[in-house]
Amino acid sequence: MRIGVDVGGTTVKIGIVDDHKIIDYYSIKTNKDTLFDDIYNSINEYVNKNNISIDGIGFGLPGSVSNNYIKALPNVGLYDIDLNKIHNKYFSNIKLYSTNDANCAALGEHINNPKYHSSYLLTLGTGVGGGYVYNDKLVLGATNNCGEVGHMFIGSDFNFKCTCGLTNCLETIASATGITRLYKLYSKNDIAISAKEVFDKARLNDSIAIKVIDIVSKALAHALANIAVTCDVDIFYLAGGVSMAGDILLNNVRKYYKEFAHYGVVNTPIEISSLKEKAGMLGCAYLW
Amino acid sequence: MRIGVDVGGTTVKIGIVDDHKIIDYYSIKTNKDTLFDDIYNSINEYVNKNNISIDGIGFGLPGSVSNNYIKALPNVGLYDIDLNKIHNKYFSNIKLYSTNDANCAALGEHINNPKYHSSYLLTLGTGVGGGYVYNDKLVLGATNNCGEVGHMFIGSDFNFKCTCGLTNCLETIASATGITRLYKLYSKNDIAISAKEVFDKARLNDSIAIKVIDIVSKALAHALANIAVTCDVDIFYLAGGVSMAGDILLNNVRKYYKEFAHYGVVNTPIEISSLKEKAGMLGCAYLW
Repeated sequence: MRIGVDVGGTTVKIGIVDDHKIIDYYSIKTNKDTLFDDIYNSINEYVNKNNISIDGIGFGLPGSVSNNYIKALPNVGLYDIDLNKIHNKYFSNIKLYSTNDANCAALGEHINNPKYHSSYLLTLGTGVGGGYVYNDKLVLGATNNCGEVGHMFIGSDFNFKCTCGLTNCLETIASATGITRLYKLYSKNDIAISAKEVFDKARLNDSIAIKVIDIVSKALAHALANIAVTCDVDIFYLAGGVSMAGDILLNNVRKYYKEFAHYGVVNTPIEISSLKEKAGMLGCAYLW
Repeated sequence: MRIGVDVGGTTVKIGIVDDHKIIDYYSIKTNKDTLFDDIYNSINEYVNKNNISIDGIGFGLPGSVSNNYIKALPNVGLYDIDLNKIHNKYFSNIKLYSTNDANCAALGEHINNPKYHSSYLLTLGTGVGGGYVYNDKLVLGATNNCGEVGHMFIGSDFNFKCTCGLTNCLETIASATGITRLYKLYSKNDIAISAKEVFDKARLNDSIAIKVIDIVSKALAHALANIAVTCDVDIFYLAGGVSMAGDILLNNVRKYYKEFAHYGVVNTPIEISSLKEKAGMLGCAYLW
């Protein structure tokens, strides 16, 4: 069996995977000071209690990682961690793989829909990430930055500054942060409002919320149309907290995609991730 | 040996290729009424005269083709041609492959630089095309539209209508047509001017020409930055007539790429195609 570990800012989801399916999973709290020892101790306990044999552990991490060396997990507050070293303390004879969490979600959703052989998944959360699967394999890119489509330029209508230092990145509009910012901008009111509340308001016909979702949907459609001409995948998936908005987002994105996409790629299907928050665990377990 | 046939609107370039090199090549005129018979007769003649043995012919076509069935070559004025049928009349026992010309140029330039394993090439001509090579293989995409990056949205500063029906496509700015249109717009004069003349004027410090090249370079840099986060290739190549402008274009594109690209991909090299107009022939010959 395989273990997929999806590390988040508040919880870590640990999945036990076999034959391309999650057969069991559990969560533990993300505790900065003891994070990786907590994870390995819990896996050790699970493996012994259930008497299973595992051939590898895969990690999906919310930050930058290369060759199992973690440079930074900004949301957790951890930097410069040699995961190989920790792994070998607990399981020196089984495989270790790791990449960023958006890549794992992309691979997990892809595996769950085996009729497609190429796909691009966008995670819409606090930020916007992505992952590209081609010929049923994850594309990591020359510098492990494949999928950083949150930093795609989608026009200069707002000139919002992005956390990455650029302006007008997709993420400044189509993330939970972007949605909140747009609502505040149009309501001319510095109220505390979540992205979920903006969607709830739109469902109740709040005109500002509807305008914000229109802008977000256009930005996403432009990004998908750009990705489509760049690598022409079989299907697009939307994942992450913002995608939970469901049809009110999906229908608008699909409508604008039809308007903005080149005629050759206009029929690429766009779906909400069906595995939702479980996609990461499945993908992590298939990094090898 | 292999034959690569790069079909253009005015001439057809035919290359004899061996061991990843063009060892000989010649051109014939593009004659709409007898195009493919002209090509096959000339290859037959070459093969017999030089007493060589060939194992396949690859075609790069300025239009849409799928499974060796040509739907349209708009610049030539030919439609609905079954290339398999013509091929079998002349060479029924050797391989036939075909794709669009930008894909062939991308593959040819890639083969000529074997130290890189992924690359994206943009052809800047009357229109803008492209081709993506990953793991040393051409990516055709789900619908054979991979590389149609001329129809990427790069912002709504001009609202130029594209031949594809969309507005604000990269091609409306960064093609020879786009450069001419921009020069006319800023000079407020409907003069006849070619893209080459705009670059020549810029070298003589014509302020309008300099402004136009600045706009074109920004559009290209935004497109490359978008492609970089989408598939994170080892290197970018610029090809086609407009790329012949050389340093005056390349230096500006590189400058703006540094400004617009996400920090993770900011060091991706950008080069002018070194094979220039010969890249297509080489790529055609390695479609198999």
